[in-house]
Amino acid sequence: MKHLLVIGIGAGNPDYITMQAVKALNRVDVFFLMDKGKSKQALIDLRREICERYITDHTYRFVEAVSPERERGEGDYTASVDALNRARQQTFERLINEQLYDGQCGGFLVWGDPALYDSTLRILQAIQAAGRCEFDYEVIPGISSVQALAAQHKIPLNTIGRSVEITTGRRLAAGQSGEADSIVVMLDAEDSYQQVADRDTEIYWGAYLGTPDEILISGRLADVAEEIEHVRKAARAEHGWIMDIYLLRKP
Amino acid sequence: MKHLLVIGIGAGNPDYITMQAVKALNRVDVFFLMDKGKSKQALIDLRREICERYITDHTYRFVEAVSPERERGEGDYTASVDALNRARQQTFERLINEQLYDGQCGGFLVWGDPALYDSTLRILQAIQAAGRCEFDYEVIPGISSVQALAAQHKIPLNTIGRSVEITTGRRLAAGQSGEADSIVVMLDAEDSYQQVADRDTEIYWGAYLGTPDEILISGRLADVAEEIEHVRKAARAEHGWIMDIYLLRKP
Repeated sequence: MKHLLVIGIGAGNPDYITMQAVKALNRVDVFFLMDKGKSKQALIDLRREICERYITDHTYRFVEAVSPERERGEGDYTASVDALNRARQQTFERLINEQLYDGQCGGFLVWGDPALYDSTLRILQAIQAAGRCEFDYEVIPGISSVQALAAQHKIPLNTIGRSVEITTGRRLAAGQSGEADSIVVMLDAEDSYQQVADRDTEIYWGAYLGTPDEILISGRLADVAEEIEHVRKAARAEHGWIMDIYLLRKP
Repeated sequence: MKHLLVIGIGAGNPDYITMQAVKALNRVDVFFLMDKGKSKQALIDLRREICERYITDHTYRFVEAVSPERERGEGDYTASVDALNRARQQTFERLINEQLYDGQCGGFLVWGDPALYDSTLRILQAIQAAGRCEFDYEVIPGISSVQALAAQHKIPLNTIGRSVEITTGRRLAAGQSGEADSIVVMLDAEDSYQQVADRDTEIYWGAYLGTPDEILISGRLADVAEEIEHVRKAARAEHGWIMDIYLLRKP
């Protein structure tokens, strides 16, 4: 039997790693690195740094795989993610079959928390369901960018007794967010906070959270939305990529 | 100037603690312990265990304070939490003034993540706003029970491209949950999953997550709701308290 560990390594700050994750890192024989897109090198560097810092008594190796990228454009988002995940499933399956012996432990290092807007768990479930590859797996939670955002702004996510909605920029722009007075928006490539009608809404925005490049801006949309759009564009141009997130608090 | 650290210690498993939290623990001179209710002793024991395990080169002491409990009953929930927080504000203010010298560091160890359904940040902000007590503070995120639940069930919180709502048992029972197909319910004292109309909804339930007493049950509400209610009642009777949480996934 092969064993896989899906390890949340936290969002940005190497100190976000948990003791549970450190113990898990020290059990892994082969790390599978599958980042994609422009942030790829920065994210792979962070993973290597984390392994070097925290693995003390175990030999391990890295296997890098080219991860297919999602087709951008106006097509069906769910269908394009599904197609991407099928392609990634084939890659994962091949890696587990070819790179891992029975009794060995493979590791996936997931940015943030594996439970939030990450496909690794979904792909492993699909591989198990297909039945061509036998393994079991464990999941190690990690500090998500949602939590990093709240901690760095020193704010609660919820107001007293109310809900928090975690959603995507795409859904916010499409007016599909719900009744919650606190909305966390992830994966927003399009400055969707500019679509929010009530400009008295407070925004708490953060980019490159927990890293030396961290940027935080907060205030009423009426006061800071233009600044965020400007800073965001400049930061993306400077770094070649951006990872950001924000909380909207309705008045 | 006094310095305060609001440290998320994770939900249940002492290994959920982060490196950032360990570094923070080692800066604290005085830990303020303010648990309440029937789970009090278990939660205080966990905090002491965490300090003993991870503080290596620093002397520290604990100050325990009686934390007022919220009035239960049919009154206005927000008003009763507000009243409770005013009482806790007075207690916190007294502790900071009387137990901490200038230049010293005080620590609040928060179960789970300080940003989610915890009043510590709100109370510190109120004390700063009142201006009778001068300090600055930092927030250290922790693994929340939301993440522990997903990790132990090995499931993502969201479905592809969709939202996740984090809400309370009270709001779920009142029909105030939103459109999200994934709803995480916290603080449910009343088995509110029994109020969900569509019994094909999947529930992923967990209690005492990350501890040796952990219980996990999942399935369609039609199949497992009675079992959860029964197990929950028995566990609460055995331990004298219960901390549980669940994810509802609409069909």
